[in-house]
Amino acid sequence: MPKPNHSKALLEAGLATFHQRGYHASGVQDVVSTAGVPKGSFYNHFESKDALGLAVLTHYWDQRAEARAILTNATLSGGERLKRYLGDFSYSEDGCLIGNFTAELTNIDAFRERLSELWERWTDMIAGCISDGQRDGSVRSDMPARDMASSVIALLEGAILATRVERSPRPLETAKRTILRLLST
Amino acid sequence: MPKPNHSKALLEAGLATFHQRGYHASGVQDVVSTAGVPKGSFYNHFESKDALGLAVLTHYWDQRAEARAILTNATLSGGERLKRYLGDFSYSEDGCLIGNFTAELTNIDAFRERLSELWERWTDMIAGCISDGQRDGSVRSDMPARDMASSVIALLEGAILATRVERSPRPLETAKRTILRLLST
Repeated sequence: MPKPNHSKALLEAGLATFHQRGYHASGVQDVVSTAGVPKGSFYNHFESKDALGLAVLTHYWDQRAEARAILTNATLSGGERLKRYLGDFSYSEDGCLIGNFTAELTNIDAFRERLSELWERWTDMIAGCISDGQRDGSVRSDMPARDMASSVIALLEGAILATRVERSPRPLETAKRTILRLLST
Repeated sequence: MPKPNHSKALLEAGLATFHQRGYHASGVQDVVSTAGVPKGSFYNHFESKDALGLAVLTHYWDQRAEARAILTNATLSGGERLKRYLGDFSYSEDGCLIGNFTAELTNIDAFRERLSELWERWTDMIAGCISDGQRDGSVRSDMPARDMASSVIALLEGAILATRVERSPRPLETAKRTILRLLST
């Protein structure tokens, strides 16, 4: 019977390995070594490397649920929610796993479908804030909320790519200032 | 003696292969097959897959020199140059090779250095236009030109990632509109 602790260890090791080295640059052997799990046990938990990759992507998204909670906090104005969300949006020297997988894996249908769903959900949440902010007067209202949300996410993901080449959070900080400027009334 | 036509064929095949499938997902064998060149001859032209990867990156950048020429056209205002540059900025279903390599290869020093140089040159050119536009009144002047340039590139690269999941140029078109809105006086 598959050991649940092995499953969790493989998920965490998969996340660390794919995030640091990239998906195609990592083998199942790298993941089991990092997890400290026998290679034979891998396939008791995941039917393939792609199955682990998809689970890792969902896990990465789920880990950020707490950070996204502010986006639906109805006690704050839409603009204030976005401001706080950006303020807490953290820098990682390995970039964003969603962005990395998008660049590397959209030619694999199962990944493209899952990624598409995550981009969509993320855009919906940001668009919800912007549209509330347009109603409460905290966000400019001369641009469609959904277009602004797509642009906010594009700015974040593009800036995160730039942090990879600069090895510095500076481009992300610049993008946050630009977003606030772009949204301001 | 290395045949120059083989060298060119390998460069074009490397670009097509790395762009479509990703760098780590492509082997030297895939490149020589696409090029129709004997595998043995690969190493007469490139000392390693990484050497080809770096040459491909430079080739990709050089191919876009004509598209960038508008950015230094001194007969136009800074804002107009940017507007025309964006108007001609084209969509590829494989995304931007610079963005893809940034997501996948910045943990390899030689790639990170070359990528860093290209991001820097691109930012310089956009910043030059913005700063001219701030002087000639065609671009808003309440934000530093270099920060705006970083944000323009972040918006483009992030939106190009989004085009990969949507398989549509729509996110790039939205980003272009946002950029023009962001720059406008």
